[in-house]
Amino acid sequence: MTGGRRLAALALMSAGCWPAAAVAQPVDAASRATVERIRAAPAFRRAEAALADGHDRFVRDIIQLTEIPAPPFGEQRRGEAFRALMVEAGLTDVTVDSVGNVIGLRRGSGPAGRPPVVVSAHLDTVFPEGTDVRVRREGTRLSAPGIGDDSRGLAALLAYVRALDAAGIRTRRDLLIVGTVSEEGRGDLRGVRQLFADRRDGRGIAAFFSVDGLSPARITRGGVGSKRYRVLFRGPGGHSYGAFGLVNPAAAMARAITDLYALPVPQQPRTTFSASVVGGGTSVNAIPSEVFVEVDMRSEDATALARLDEAFRGVVERAVAVENESRSTREGRVTATLEAIGDRPAGETPATSPIVRLSAAASAAAGYAPTLDASSTDANMAMSLGVPAVTIGSGGTGGRAHALDEWIDVAPEESVRGLAVGLLAIVAVADQPDSRPRR
Amino acid sequence: MTGGRRLAALALMSAGCWPAAAVAQPVDAASRATVERIRAAPAFRRAEAALADGHDRFVRDIIQLTEIPAPPFGEQRRGEAFRALMVEAGLTDVTVDSVGNVIGLRRGSGPAGRPPVVVSAHLDTVFPEGTDVRVRREGTRLSAPGIGDDSRGLAALLAYVRALDAAGIRTRRDLLIVGTVSEEGRGDLRGVRQLFADRRDGRGIAAFFSVDGLSPARITRGGVGSKRYRVLFRGPGGHSYGAFGLVNPAAAMARAITDLYALPVPQQPRTTFSASVVGGGTSVNAIPSEVFVEVDMRSEDATALARLDEAFRGVVERAVAVENESRSTREGRVTATLEAIGDRPAGETPATSPIVRLSAAASAAAGYAPTLDASSTDANMAMSLGVPAVTIGSGGTGGRAHALDEWIDVAPEESVRGLAVGLLAIVAVADQPDSRPRR
Repeated sequence: MTGGRRLAALALMSAGCWPAAAVAQPVDAASRATVERIRAAPAFRRAEAALADGHDRFVRDIIQLTEIPAPPFGEQRRGEAFRALMVEAGLTDVTVDSVGNVIGLRRGSGPAGRPPVVVSAHLDTVFPEGTDVRVRREGTRLSAPGIGDDSRGLAALLAYVRALDAAGIRTRRDLLIVGTVSEEGRGDLRGVRQLFADRRDGRGIAAFFSVDGLSPARITRGGVGSKRYRVLFRGPGGHSYGAFGLVNPAAAMARAITDLYALPVPQQPRTTFSASVVGGGTSVNAIPSEVFVEVDMRSEDATALARLDEAFRGVVERAVAVENESRSTREGRVTATLEAIGDRPAGETPATSPIVRLSAAASAAAGYAPTLDASSTDANMAMSLGVPAVTIGSGGTGGRAHALDEWIDVAPEESVRGLAVGLLAIVAVADQPDSRPRR
Repeated sequence: MTGGRRLAALALMSAGCWPAAAVAQPVDAASRATVERIRAAPAFRRAEAALADGHDRFVRDIIQLTEIPAPPFGEQRRGEAFRALMVEAGLTDVTVDSVGNVIGLRRGSGPAGRPPVVVSAHLDTVFPEGTDVRVRREGTRLSAPGIGDDSRGLAALLAYVRALDAAGIRTRRDLLIVGTVSEEGRGDLRGVRQLFADRRDGRGIAAFFSVDGLSPARITRGGVGSKRYRVLFRGPGGHSYGAFGLVNPAAAMARAITDLYALPVPQQPRTTFSASVVGGGTSVNAIPSEVFVEVDMRSEDATALARLDEAFRGVVERAVAVENESRSTREGRVTATLEAIGDRPAGETPATSPIVRLSAAASAAAGYAPTLDASSTDANMAMSLGVPAVTIGSGGTGGRAHALDEWIDVAPEESVRGLAVGLLAIVAVADQPDSRPRR
């Protein structure tokens, strides 16, 4: 889970400085009734008992997976371990796709080949190769980089499969259990992108759960889209004194940043930008021949993001033109190239969609106060393609996601209580009678 | 020799892209007469013959010194070799001062303790430790980093001492022969600064020659001053999406660069600036907490430089203020600090000063067409303190100073002809009867 608006309640994880945000979600009567009916049935009671009985094993899985480094583009070893755990959990057709996503099928009672409900967690972490990923345990508190984001999510998928098997629950729809690669940072949703591309751009997927983060009260139904560029400004360079008067790519870059920061963006849908990393030049006494700035732009709304993207391209173009008009181009002109280093689609699942309503009802049924928010996760891809999707936490408490001192608490009662919310939501959605859950 | 305006004629060295520049210098009758008298005397004829006879040794000295790496702050080994060569050449009182300048005295016929004429070349090069400094020789062409700038100058000092000894010439004033450290780049004239500080801020020095570069027709009498800063912009930083709306130090920096490039500077006296190196930020999805830009400002005129310096400080201050007004400072304000990374004084020796007139006359006497220009060399320090000073080349041809393929040609006739110009100018100045050469 990479950023997004957070709720204050139980989401200790990465609380940080997100402004305002989550919206309390009232639970509608029909969804409440559906969820309560499933929850009260003996089969689901058995599943909950199995989650509790299997909690030690669940914790061992978390630790095992956490201690295998898995930066974006380096998830292979963790993926292999996850594949073996999936097979051991009894999933059939366990495969690793072309980019490294680990995919296992749990057949439903419906006809084979119907679009499944995807239940996914991400294999990668934000931590580079070489990070100390050993888990430190103090009582029920486990500390290690990536342990909550998203090792706990991965282990939850396995716990769900085992609990459903133990309870003898067969959902109507197939469940496709997926460990995705490259959710974080420069990974840019590479894994989930491929998953949808391989399934007719999502037309082969009925609904999508991303199990990411901890809070079982936080239902992420908004996908914050982002566009990221490394903008490279080039010019002829030259001696700072002797060649004074020539165009300077740093001056063009400066104007572009200044003008970016003068662009108006809507507060609703929330739309943002940042000039984040700058670099270039070789010596204080030389006009640089090359400088760059990395820019991040985001919006909850695809149109607002596209509009900002277009405005930014205009800003860069104009800054270059102004520089070439303002100073001498006798040794060459300033140019700018935009290298896309991130492109996450925006999207949202309507608050009235069954997957949102049922997830909120499942959360409320366990005694949580569900809220809806927007973030940037694997679910973005689904939302952008119109596939009903939410991101939900796997329970427990914790904090410091994306930091070296990341931690989770696996005190069993709270841990299992939160874990069961996701399972209930998944069963409710996968049992929906519609050919495709209505949006 | 670090930049400056160059003349087209014989100064093949670093010709590069310097605009317009050098001014042809007519030789006045009195200076011509003085120089011709010295030049025609048998003693100077013997000195010229000694330069020719010692040319092979001169070339060996160039090679020996070039092949000892000597970046600014790393001149110790080359300094030690130069010290040994000075002692071998018969100089008395050879010392190494607190910063590493190598200093030897050649007594004149005047009373001891009178301010000497300094004849200097710089020990350091622009090339970092680890650069391949082996000299490649093809016929009379020698190639190696730093060979012309300024190994040839260092070897010229030794050749002058030997030639004066061989000819039995004793100048009126003492000659202080100096190999300076840290003339280049970040060295920031550290050596010559110390030399003058140790001699009552120059009141203990009668006149100053820097033997730097090649052309014996180029008399540098203007010292281009410079101010260099590393400007560090700091702010609270934060998540690019979650903390959007907070102040961004990169936006403040961009505005400062944009506004710097809108500052008017005079063409005469030539005054320049450059935003040269930029850096900072950690991740595309984070508002940076720290960015920097390195800025170089220069002028032939101290007042114009001070005015630009003040305007730039105002630009930085205003950019920071605008940023703090434009966005939220709830997590902290943007600040900027200017770290001075270079401060070379501007100055000039009047065109009518004896050192300029006699140097031009010496150049013309050897058949060159002398020109006056401005540059940034060790002589800046002298000029800024009101000590009559010029920078002159040591003869020969060459090119590509400050580049790895730097070269010189030591074809003896042209090499000795150029070498003799400097010696003639030095003798003429050191024989001046005034208590201090008039400015």
